[in-house]
Amino acid sequence: MEFLTGVKEKETLEIGGLSEKAKEGQRVKINGAVHTIRDMGTVAFVILRKREGLLQCVYERGNTNIKLKDIKEGAAIEVEGTLMENEKAPGHMEIQMKEVRILSMPREEGMPLPVSKWKLNTSLEAKLNYRSVTLRNIRERAKFRIQEGLTRAFRDFLYGEGFTEIHTPKIGAKGAEGGANIFKLAYFHRPAVLAQSPQFYKQIMVGVFDRVFETAPVFRAEKHNTKRHLNEYTSLDLEMGYIDSFEDIMAMETGYLQYAVGLLERKYKSELQILDITLPKADQIPAAPFREMKERISEKYGHRMRNPFDLEPEEEQLISRYAKEEWDSDFIFVTHYPSKKRPFYAMDDPEDTRYTLSFDLLFRGMEITTGGQRIHDYQMLMEKIASRGMETDGMEQYLNAFKYGMPPHGGLGIGLERLTMQLAGEDNIRETTLFPRDLNRLEP
Amino acid sequence: MEFLTGVKEKETLEIGGLSEKAKEGQRVKINGAVHTIRDMGTVAFVILRKREGLLQCVYERGNTNIKLKDIKEGAAIEVEGTLMENEKAPGHMEIQMKEVRILSMPREEGMPLPVSKWKLNTSLEAKLNYRSVTLRNIRERAKFRIQEGLTRAFRDFLYGEGFTEIHTPKIGAKGAEGGANIFKLAYFHRPAVLAQSPQFYKQIMVGVFDRVFETAPVFRAEKHNTKRHLNEYTSLDLEMGYIDSFEDIMAMETGYLQYAVGLLERKYKSELQILDITLPKADQIPAAPFREMKERISEKYGHRMRNPFDLEPEEEQLISRYAKEEWDSDFIFVTHYPSKKRPFYAMDDPEDTRYTLSFDLLFRGMEITTGGQRIHDYQMLMEKIASRGMETDGMEQYLNAFKYGMPPHGGLGIGLERLTMQLAGEDNIRETTLFPRDLNRLEP
Repeated sequence: MEFLTGVKEKETLEIGGLSEKAKEGQRVKINGAVHTIRDMGTVAFVILRKREGLLQCVYERGNTNIKLKDIKEGAAIEVEGTLMENEKAPGHMEIQMKEVRILSMPREEGMPLPVSKWKLNTSLEAKLNYRSVTLRNIRERAKFRIQEGLTRAFRDFLYGEGFTEIHTPKIGAKGAEGGANIFKLAYFHRPAVLAQSPQFYKQIMVGVFDRVFETAPVFRAEKHNTKRHLNEYTSLDLEMGYIDSFEDIMAMETGYLQYAVGLLERKYKSELQILDITLPKADQIPAAPFREMKERISEKYGHRMRNPFDLEPEEEQLISRYAKEEWDSDFIFVTHYPSKKRPFYAMDDPEDTRYTLSFDLLFRGMEITTGGQRIHDYQMLMEKIASRGMETDGMEQYLNAFKYGMPPHGGLGIGLERLTMQLAGEDNIRETTLFPRDLNRLEP
Repeated sequence: MEFLTGVKEKETLEIGGLSEKAKEGQRVKINGAVHTIRDMGTVAFVILRKREGLLQCVYERGNTNIKLKDIKEGAAIEVEGTLMENEKAPGHMEIQMKEVRILSMPREEGMPLPVSKWKLNTSLEAKLNYRSVTLRNIRERAKFRIQEGLTRAFRDFLYGEGFTEIHTPKIGAKGAEGGANIFKLAYFHRPAVLAQSPQFYKQIMVGVFDRVFETAPVFRAEKHNTKRHLNEYTSLDLEMGYIDSFEDIMAMETGYLQYAVGLLERKYKSELQILDITLPKADQIPAAPFREMKERISEKYGHRMRNPFDLEPEEEQLISRYAKEEWDSDFIFVTHYPSKKRPFYAMDDPEDTRYTLSFDLLFRGMEITTGGQRIHDYQMLMEKIASRGMETDGMEQYLNAFKYGMPPHGGLGIGLERLTMQLAGEDNIRETTLFPRDLNRLEP
C-alpha cells in the first residue's frame, strides 16, 4: 500500500538559497524553461526561466552531455552542473552545465514574438493575441506578481482587522447596481444576470459577521471600449458594520494601502525593481468634498466644469495633480458625491441630501475605489427605492436583512486591475489583466 | 484639510482581550446586535451577538438609562457598563448595563425563525428562504468561518510552496471540460459561456509561473438536483509544473490538508467547538488504483459493480469505509481513473492507456478533489483531440502554450463547499454554501 505523507523535498533547487551554494562552487541540479540561448562560438549561454527569475547556464562544447542544437528555446530542461559566482550574470551566479536532461520540447522553433527581450516592444494587440507566450516575458509576468501582492495584502490586512471572507454567487436574479450594463443569461429557462458587484450579499453578511470581504470577479456589460474599463474584473470588496461615520471606511482603506505598500516592499522587491515601480506614500491621504475639489481645480488650473454631477477623467487627473502639488499625495479621497449619481442604497448626507456620505479614491489620476455609508434603516431604504421608482422583486431577502435589523455600515470596492495599472504606471487596463474581456475580446 | 492616517483604535471593544478586563471589573463600552432577550422579572439578560461570539449583558431595572422594552431583538446597540466575571455566561463574563445607546432598530418585532436557538431546527428550505436572517444563528455562521479557514490555508500553504495566485476570466468562448453542462450567455451579440473550470488558463499559466493557484467561482449547468451538486461553486485550483509524476500533485494536496488542519486548530478553535468538529488526520493518506479499490470493496463488502468506468456515490462511501477500517484514514486517493471518463487533456498511463495518471480524493465518503497529470506534448495533445473528434476552434491560445513549450505538469481542483460539508458533517452541500444556486434556486 502506498501512502502520501506530504510535500517531499526535491533534488532540484529553486533560485532562492542558491547564492550560498554558489560561493562554495557546489554541484547542483536545477530545472526550468529555456528562455533564450546566446551562442558565442566556443561557449553558449542558456538562460533558464524559473518562477523566481532567470538563471544563466554556461554551455561549453565537450563539457556537456548533449549537443547545443538539441536545446531549444521553450524547452523544459533539467541541468546538473557546478554553480559559480559571476557578477555579470542575473543573480550574480551561473551554472557550468554538465548533464542536461530534456523534460519536454516545444513544437515550434523560436517564439512568435521576442519574449526573451527585456521589454516586449510590441502592440498591446499583438501581446494579447499571443497571450500564453507573451506572459512569459519577465516584465509582463512581474505585473501579475505585484497584483498577487495587492490581493494578498487586502486579505491579510482584513483578517487582522476582524473581517471574515465570504463567497457570494455570481449568478443571480437581479443586478445590485441597476442600470443597463448587466449581462443576461438563461438559467434553466429562467432569466438570470451576472453579478455587477457583491453589494447586496456583502451587506446581508454584515448582519452576520459585522465585517466581511470578498475578492472575486464582477461583470459589467459596458458597451464602450476605453483604456480604463473591462467587462469582467476582479473586485476587492469590503463591508463593515458599527461604523461611526463613513470616515471609518476611508480609514480602513488607508490602513490597507499602508499594509500593501509594506508587503510589496518586504516580499515583492524583485518585481518592484523589474518594473521600476516607486511605491506611493500612504501615511496620510487627503480627503475633500466633491464640490470643493471641483472648485479648487477650476481656480488653480482654470478648468471649465461641464458636468456638475460627475467627475470626467480629465477632472480626476487634475484633482490628483492638485493633491500631489498641494499635499504631496498620490492618493486623494473625493467625498460627498451627488446623490443622483449614486445607487439607491447610498446614505444621503443628512446636512444636504443632494449629496451622499460616499467617496471615491483617486490614485495617480484615476478612480480606483468607490465606497460609502449605506442606508441601514428599513423604512428609509424603502422610501429611497420608491422615490426612484424601482421594483423590489427579487430583493426580498436583501430587504429582510434590514427588516430584522442591521447596524450602521458601509463599504467599498477596489478595482484590482486598475490599482495594479496605476501602480505599474501602465496606461491601459488590459496591460494589467491576465486575459482581458472587452467589447471585442472573448479569447484567450 | 482633513487627512486619513489609517485605522484608529475604537473606544468600543471586541470580545478578544475582554477577559483580562473582566477580572478587574473594568468599565467598558461595547456594541453588537441583540441576539436574544431573556426577561427574568427584576433582571433581564440581553445577549449581544458580535463577530467573535456572544456576550451576556445584564439589565437591572433602575440601573440602566433605558427601558427594557426599548431594546428589541435585532437592534444594534452600544452598551456601557461594568465587565464582571461569571462562570455561567458565554466566555465566562458579563456586562452590568449602565448606558445603552440604540444604533439602529429593526422594523419587525421578533425573528421569522428562532435564530437565537443553539440549533436551528428548521428545514433546509426554510433556512434558505430566510437566509439573511438564519445565517445569524451561531452554528450556521460558524460553518462559514471554517470555510474561510480552508480557503485561507490553501492560499497560505501554496504561497509558501512558491505558487502564484492568478485571476482568470469566467466568461469565455469555449468550455474547458466539454459536455453539456455549460451555461451560455450573449456577450455583445456573440455566443459565450461561463467557465466550468479555470483549466485552460491555469495550464497556460504554468508556462509562465511554473506553479499557480486560483480560488474562484466555477459554473456547471448540471440538470440534476442532488445533495452534492451545485450549479455554482468555489473551486480551489492549483496547477504545477516540473512534476516527476502525478504523485507530486497528491503530495501537494496532502501537504495542504495537513496545513489546513493545523490552521483550523490554531485559529478556528471556537468554531470547531461550536460545530463539534473532529479534525481528520492527514499525516498519511493511502492511495490505490481505481480498479484495485473496486475489487477490494467487492471482496470485503460483497458490493456488486454496475459501472466499471466510474464510481457511484455508494462506491465512494464503501471505499472510504474501507480506508477507515483498513488504514484508519478519513481520506483516500483513488488513482488511475479510466481514460474515457477523463477530459482530453488528461495524461494516459503509458503502461495501460485505458487508464490515466489521475486521481480523485475521497473524504469521509465523498469525492472532494479531481486531479492528475496533463498532457504537455503538443503532438500528443493534438492526437488526443483528434481521436475524440473535438474541434480546436477557440482553443488556439491554449494550444499555443504547448506549441511553444510546456513542462510536464498537473494539478487539481477542490470543491470548497464539499470539503466544508464533509468536515462539518453536513449531509447537503447547500448547508455549507452561503447562497446556493441549484435548479430551483436563483435567490437570495
